[in-house]
Amino acid sequence: MKVNIIGNGITKFGELWEEDLRGLAFMAGFSAIKDANLEPKDIDALYIANMNSSSFSGQQHLGSLIASDLNLNCPGLRVEGVCASGSLAINCAFNAIKSQLYKTVLVIGVEKMTDVETAIATMALASASDEEWEGFYGVTFPCLYAMMAREHFRQYGTNREDLAKISVKNHLNAILNPNAHFHRAISTNDVLRAPLVSSPLGLLDCSPISDGAAAIILSSKFKGKVELVTSEIATDKIALHDREELTSIKATRIAGTSAYKTAGIKPKDIDIAEVHDCFSIAELIAYEDLGFVTTKQTKKYISDGYFSREGELPINTSGGLKGCGHPVGATGVKQANEIVLQLLGKAGTRQLNRPLRYGLTHNVGGSGGTSVINIFKKNK
Amino acid sequence: MKVNIIGNGITKFGELWEEDLRGLAFMAGFSAIKDANLEPKDIDALYIANMNSSSFSGQQHLGSLIASDLNLNCPGLRVEGVCASGSLAINCAFNAIKSQLYKTVLVIGVEKMTDVETAIATMALASASDEEWEGFYGVTFPCLYAMMAREHFRQYGTNREDLAKISVKNHLNAILNPNAHFHRAISTNDVLRAPLVSSPLGLLDCSPISDGAAAIILSSKFKGKVELVTSEIATDKIALHDREELTSIKATRIAGTSAYKTAGIKPKDIDIAEVHDCFSIAELIAYEDLGFVTTKQTKKYISDGYFSREGELPINTSGGLKGCGHPVGATGVKQANEIVLQLLGKAGTRQLNRPLRYGLTHNVGGSGGTSVINIFKKNK
Repeated sequence: MKVNIIGNGITKFGELWEEDLRGLAFMAGFSAIKDANLEPKDIDALYIANMNSSSFSGQQHLGSLIASDLNLNCPGLRVEGVCASGSLAINCAFNAIKSQLYKTVLVIGVEKMTDVETAIATMALASASDEEWEGFYGVTFPCLYAMMAREHFRQYGTNREDLAKISVKNHLNAILNPNAHFHRAISTNDVLRAPLVSSPLGLLDCSPISDGAAAIILSSKFKGKVELVTSEIATDKIALHDREELTSIKATRIAGTSAYKTAGIKPKDIDIAEVHDCFSIAELIAYEDLGFVTTKQTKKYISDGYFSREGELPINTSGGLKGCGHPVGATGVKQANEIVLQLLGKAGTRQLNRPLRYGLTHNVGGSGGTSVINIFKKNK
Repeated sequence: MKVNIIGNGITKFGELWEEDLRGLAFMAGFSAIKDANLEPKDIDALYIANMNSSSFSGQQHLGSLIASDLNLNCPGLRVEGVCASGSLAINCAFNAIKSQLYKTVLVIGVEKMTDVETAIATMALASASDEEWEGFYGVTFPCLYAMMAREHFRQYGTNREDLAKISVKNHLNAILNPNAHFHRAISTNDVLRAPLVSSPLGLLDCSPISDGAAAIILSSKFKGKVELVTSEIATDKIALHDREELTSIKATRIAGTSAYKTAGIKPKDIDIAEVHDCFSIAELIAYEDLGFVTTKQTKKYISDGYFSREGELPINTSGGLKGCGHPVGATGVKQANEIVLQLLGKAGTRQLNRPLRYGLTHNVGGSGGTSVINIFKKNK
């Protein structure tokens, strides 16, 4: 049985002062239902991805709330795995369809983050770490990824310039995406001269705090030109100090290996990918963990533009978390949207001008405690 | 394929000042693994049920956190549907096993509520309602259920005495449960004379704020004497003012009808049930919505002790949410635990002294925006 992607919806990402949580979720969900040319009665279940509407908006129970607003008469529930919530919800929908429990499932990822001040948002985001042994000691997420960057620099000779090129690429890609948070080209020098957040990571190595929502409809009943071939989750120790290594995210390696195996493909078969660049170092490590490069090749591949729009394997054509924005619960669903639009040839001005068959999304929870890999395929 | 229940674990419920969120989840999970005589490697996935660890404990990402602590190397994620989270997580585990995605799944429900003051807890709980149209106007959960009670009184001639008898029964049952929050018999007069929280509901019509965790292991690989036959979710409008009626929870009727049909049984075939008595009126309405009584019979059945331990259909032998306590995310899993122990004949001093075949759990999210019905069966 095939799990087809039959509809997509997305809102603008950014500081959306005039939009609220439920409005964003509604807009994305409504757009997806319209895009799929369905009626509410065609939806068998609703999975909502959201990290922290409790702290950001004082609202939980989004399954019932959003089902109410969209006039759906179907089961609705929320799935949470912090920053990986979006892909986790897609994973749950995929499995529910594979099990023949439901035929058509709507997944909405949403996060409204800007209604609280930045300090509160940073604390709320720290709840994705091991609070007792990391967050409560003041270790915020930039710090966790900074430690990973430092160790990567030490072991493999990578440096701030390598990281900067990743942010530069993602900002450049975002310019072509009308829904992206930022539409501004930045230079390597801009990144290197930006204020340090947690050395060696500067402000432009970090994804922003954004509002936004994205939706996708999966179905075994209705036909689509793109299918979700496989969806794999893996979990690792939540605390950085409990991990086997700092320079690789084991959960990504496990989920990735498993996903390639199930899909019957190799990393080189992937034509396009959206990877989790919450920090520039996260994207660099993803290249290696997903088998796109060996640690020896990383510097050269980045330098050669291998992952740019014109390169061999375009990564984060949406602008990634850095350029497109990172409304946490929405991110994994937005990644899926971008891959599907590109495979369908419907990505507008940012459409890649080449044949595409396989696309991958890589979505990480916290500093790597959770990783989800979804592989999409365009049917011939 | 059968989904067997192969292990249970539970902590004490109550004001557990010396326990924290992760400790409670660990204890319940560890007990269940031990009870099933398994090793961590035997667990294929972990589903965590929790409503609001973000507001209560500043910690999210419980899938990875608890998998880390229990030394599980498997996917872990959290499911949230406020007060129905526990049964929702069991539902997800059930479906994942039915789909042959996993063979053995550990479900842990946990809530640590007493680390914040009562006013903050009440606000956090209000996030289960439609915040924008209910919570933010000061409508707390006792108010929502009070409106349902008033309308039930008006339409069907029920009264505070009828409700009081439900609290009296559940407190009496809790005395026999060593893990219950309360071990104190109360009288009808106690309930009627208790301070009003939201008229007509008094303090003893309301379930308490409790800490606690419960765990259950479902498996298609390992044998068990009790199986989960069916698990059904339904969603309704989240806001009370958007519902078709106040005196019935439509989501329960939909999920219940569906569950009975799938199990191939009628309400009269149920030998024991745990129902969601967050407020006394909720249990009364559940009797009707689950088809155990008609609205004309309710008063008499309550008065005759039909739902007591000695009655025809014992309900809430654990003590229910009122007597056993209501650590929100743990409740649905505790309900399942109670049914399984009773079906197995392992409920200790509170074991019912009669043959039991079918047991049902009824778990409601918010004021009825979500309802989950699970039906368990003892194999001959």
